[in-house]
Amino acid sequence: MFFYFLENLLVHIDSPKDLKKLTLAELPQLAQELRDFIIDIVSTKEGHLGASLGVVELTIALHYVFNTPTDKLIWDVGHQAYGHKILTGRKDIFETNRQLGGISGFPKRSESEYDDFGTGHSSTAISAILGMAMASKLKGDVDRQHIAVVGDASIAGGMAFEGLNHLGVTDANALIILNDNAIGIDPSVGALKKYLTNVKKGTAKDENIFECLNLNYSGPIDGHDVMVLVSELERLKHIQGPKLLHVITKKGKGLKKAEEDQVVYHAPGKFDKKTGERLKKSSTNEPPKYQEVFGYTLVELAQKNEKIVGITPAMPTGSSLKLMMDQIPDRAFDVGIAEQHAVTLAAGMATLGLIPFCNIYSTFLQRAYDQVIHDVALQNLPVIFCLDRAGLVGQDGPTHHGVFDLAYLRCIPNMIVFAPINEMELRNIMHTAQLGLDNPIAIRYPRGRGVNLNWRQDFQPIEIGTGICLKEGSTTAVLTVGHIGNEVGEIIASLDQNESIGHYDMRFVKPLDKNMLRTIFGQYEQIITIEDGCKMGGFGSAVLEFANEEGFTKPIKIFGIPDEFIAQGTIDETHKIAGIDFDTLKTFIQSTTDQCE
Amino acid sequence: MFFYFLENLLVHIDSPKDLKKLTLAELPQLAQELRDFIIDIVSTKEGHLGASLGVVELTIALHYVFNTPTDKLIWDVGHQAYGHKILTGRKDIFETNRQLGGISGFPKRSESEYDDFGTGHSSTAISAILGMAMASKLKGDVDRQHIAVVGDASIAGGMAFEGLNHLGVTDANALIILNDNAIGIDPSVGALKKYLTNVKKGTAKDENIFECLNLNYSGPIDGHDVMVLVSELERLKHIQGPKLLHVITKKGKGLKKAEEDQVVYHAPGKFDKKTGERLKKSSTNEPPKYQEVFGYTLVELAQKNEKIVGITPAMPTGSSLKLMMDQIPDRAFDVGIAEQHAVTLAAGMATLGLIPFCNIYSTFLQRAYDQVIHDVALQNLPVIFCLDRAGLVGQDGPTHHGVFDLAYLRCIPNMIVFAPINEMELRNIMHTAQLGLDNPIAIRYPRGRGVNLNWRQDFQPIEIGTGICLKEGSTTAVLTVGHIGNEVGEIIASLDQNESIGHYDMRFVKPLDKNMLRTIFGQYEQIITIEDGCKMGGFGSAVLEFANEEGFTKPIKIFGIPDEFIAQGTIDETHKIAGIDFDTLKTFIQSTTDQCE
Repeated sequence: MFFYFLENLLVHIDSPKDLKKLTLAELPQLAQELRDFIIDIVSTKEGHLGASLGVVELTIALHYVFNTPTDKLIWDVGHQAYGHKILTGRKDIFETNRQLGGISGFPKRSESEYDDFGTGHSSTAISAILGMAMASKLKGDVDRQHIAVVGDASIAGGMAFEGLNHLGVTDANALIILNDNAIGIDPSVGALKKYLTNVKKGTAKDENIFECLNLNYSGPIDGHDVMVLVSELERLKHIQGPKLLHVITKKGKGLKKAEEDQVVYHAPGKFDKKTGERLKKSSTNEPPKYQEVFGYTLVELAQKNEKIVGITPAMPTGSSLKLMMDQIPDRAFDVGIAEQHAVTLAAGMATLGLIPFCNIYSTFLQRAYDQVIHDVALQNLPVIFCLDRAGLVGQDGPTHHGVFDLAYLRCIPNMIVFAPINEMELRNIMHTAQLGLDNPIAIRYPRGRGVNLNWRQDFQPIEIGTGICLKEGSTTAVLTVGHIGNEVGEIIASLDQNESIGHYDMRFVKPLDKNMLRTIFGQYEQIITIEDGCKMGGFGSAVLEFANEEGFTKPIKIFGIPDEFIAQGTIDETHKIAGIDFDTLKTFIQSTTDQCE
Repeated sequence: MFFYFLENLLVHIDSPKDLKKLTLAELPQLAQELRDFIIDIVSTKEGHLGASLGVVELTIALHYVFNTPTDKLIWDVGHQAYGHKILTGRKDIFETNRQLGGISGFPKRSESEYDDFGTGHSSTAISAILGMAMASKLKGDVDRQHIAVVGDASIAGGMAFEGLNHLGVTDANALIILNDNAIGIDPSVGALKKYLTNVKKGTAKDENIFECLNLNYSGPIDGHDVMVLVSELERLKHIQGPKLLHVITKKGKGLKKAEEDQVVYHAPGKFDKKTGERLKKSSTNEPPKYQEVFGYTLVELAQKNEKIVGITPAMPTGSSLKLMMDQIPDRAFDVGIAEQHAVTLAAGMATLGLIPFCNIYSTFLQRAYDQVIHDVALQNLPVIFCLDRAGLVGQDGPTHHGVFDLAYLRCIPNMIVFAPINEMELRNIMHTAQLGLDNPIAIRYPRGRGVNLNWRQDFQPIEIGTGICLKEGSTTAVLTVGHIGNEVGEIIASLDQNESIGHYDMRFVKPLDKNMLRTIFGQYEQIITIEDGCKMGGFGSAVLEFANEEGFTKPIKIFGIPDEFIAQGTIDETHKIAGIDFDTLKTFIQSTTDQCE
């Protein structure tokens, strides 16, 4: 901790211009200060830790050598960009990171001229920087530099390969920095990772895979030696054309705990900034996370049904598929950041009678939309999609909200689309699906906890396309799908006069329970639909289509996410923005009882 | 033509079992017969020609060496599978290829036990075959072989890389055959293609890119020497684990014209089977194809506006972007089979003020759904998507119908979604878009011809979010979007009593022309919506949402594609299946006039 006794450098840096005033010899101290600053804030305000600690020196070197924001700089995935934000004028508001009204946890164009491209999903940076480099060329900005920093897990995503394949035949002035720390959120997998390991060990042969793709390759170099980085970047700055620099870093660098347990310290929550020890939340007896219910239930089912396999594209920990990977490793697979491959791999397995549970975050299934349509649904293969983090996800914000799935899946023929209201329904639909379905099914559930302590109940099959009446009523029927139904149940229970309110957990967005809907439309005077998904084309829209088809003209009020990208915030805050929070819903539902009296 | 004088072999082959009875020495003759058979049928019945001609020897060798259908065989993209179909029991019905009720132009699981995986979109085969190989391993079928034939254009697709990256770290018994003919539909592009060219020339260095990915590489070998192929496949059959065999073929092999003009002879239409000469359709004065209107108009606009760039993922000829690539080559780019990259490349260009026209077939934009949401719409970058072959596409069938786009794009915030009714509207919206929009826009138009001979009219800007009244009425309002509006116009004109029928070309599926809709709902007694797209979540659904939101309860009848995958056939036949054909629409519209009288 030698550097602490020197003059504080970071405090004087409000932009890369200030950074450039430092001598080369001062940069290691700045790195230490920047690292401490990140640890200091993230330890109390939470957020992504490990990735940004790993690129502290690289961040400093990039802004030291290049002329940002004139030169263009893109951080793939973006959770490695905390240091970048701090050095580019956001030091003083960094403590608002990921909060409502605060700065985004990812680069965001509207937030800073230094954030050249928004990145939340991985593997986009090469395509985007190539677009910029080609644009500069066309515009005659021949001296402008274009740099993308891409992790080794991200560069294995198919889209990144598409970008490299194009880049290699252009004369674009683009530098790809491969930030190789051998881990994404979970450890990297795949043949490319194996190859990179050989390169680092010096056991790869002469020709380099990136040279095969016609790129000017250099490295590997030590990503924690800021002097070496500056020197190499200075050299590359003067070489025109497409280049790739291989930089070796350690995720979590500088915080012992974070280096040792890189998966947990990807986003560790609050921790002691000195020891790194995570602050345990008081262990009240809480309901489980849906993720845990998925993970434990899959193991339970797979132990009895040997046809079951589990697939995750790079989210074993986040999805809890890791539980099956640990206990039944020959049937549970992390395929890396490769959603497209994950879906079609599952389809291939299904053709030979296996029962694949393909767990993908709702927002990332967007990456495999064509594969769901063309490889799964068109062939009507009974793949079981478990869509984690569906609905508004909170502080990761608009790049990660899983709000379009009901709309984009509902229009696909053959698909079954289901949203469990609680842990038991998630368990029961998983049980039902592995008994053997005639169709593919998407089961979508949110980030976070369920509502039941006693959730490990015996399995009960669910009849496809059936809803449940949770409460009978007379004048107003509230139709919900998924977890938000619990809150609606609480709202109805909290009303003084709730006899007139009926509550139906419709469960299936597709196929709709038309018999139940006919009864409801026959019986009630008005209908309310509520979903944690986009209104356009979603569940409410499906109910409208049903009512129109069958000639029902009763008033239907649709609650869901409006036609805009919803900001970051707590889940409650984002629900409020979207108008599907407790108070808004209660006010409206209550008003229907007033009308009735 | 020596072989013609020998005994006819193909006539005796009804399955691979019959093929295996031939001696090795007879295989070249069979190859000649199979090639002649394909040319014979395709010359009169039309279809994909070049790809299947190129793999005649490979097809024979595969079924000769391997034990299909127990061994699994997947043909990537699938239009190379004609020989496969002919040798696996479909010789006698091959003349029904691509027709309504006939066999599919692509492998199709429900059609034959030899079609192990449906393939219409490219780059899926590696993932699917790996899924099968992993399934076989789990099931204890250790001797089963798994083969995927993948073209050099397809293997450059990101999804294929994801598959290879996984394959290389498995012990799956899978053989990838790289069918390298240096062309997809148009010539292959990219760094990988350049690399493969070096390999073929012997100028690549020692280590091989596929060996970098931990695959057992062999080749390149001559894909038209059936003896060599059989021998090499026999050798590989006895090597466990993941393997890649590099085979060099010539697209169109055996028909001189097809070898010389590989792009045209990809799917040449009718031709003289002896000379290869294409049969010109009688050149009546026809309206142009929408594709041509796009291509010529883009050149016209780009000549005046130097910010315009054009991007196509591997469809320069099909989309007509080739016109701009020929005339303004520094601003028009074929990026290969890389839809994801194409979209984000366009986004990157847009950040620096360029105006990218990104032309993608509607069905292939499914591949880049996440990029449209995350990289374009979320950042509200004014990329101009031109979605070719939207709606039912006819004989390519369900893998290629572009019917989901209105539903999956409409739910994305910030997007503008437009469908031109004719050539002038396509020209005018392209003109409008390049003047500078605040949002991304998707312009979707069908395969085939417009309706105007005099289509090169002066540009007129279109006000975003406005429809047009084509005909005033009183009781029934017909709302259409896109080209199908022409047919509806004819229908209305053909009715004896059409005074009561109003016709509105709504043009924008998003934003809807709410003012016009308010007028319509105020004025008419019933509303009909008609679209060449899926009903679930589509344009009709948007009108329902509007009516519900504003409290209109008039009857709305929605015509569009029902919730099923529509088979192949002519465009008219597929419209009939979907219930959006002339007769069906006329009957319904007429019935509304009867009611009124």
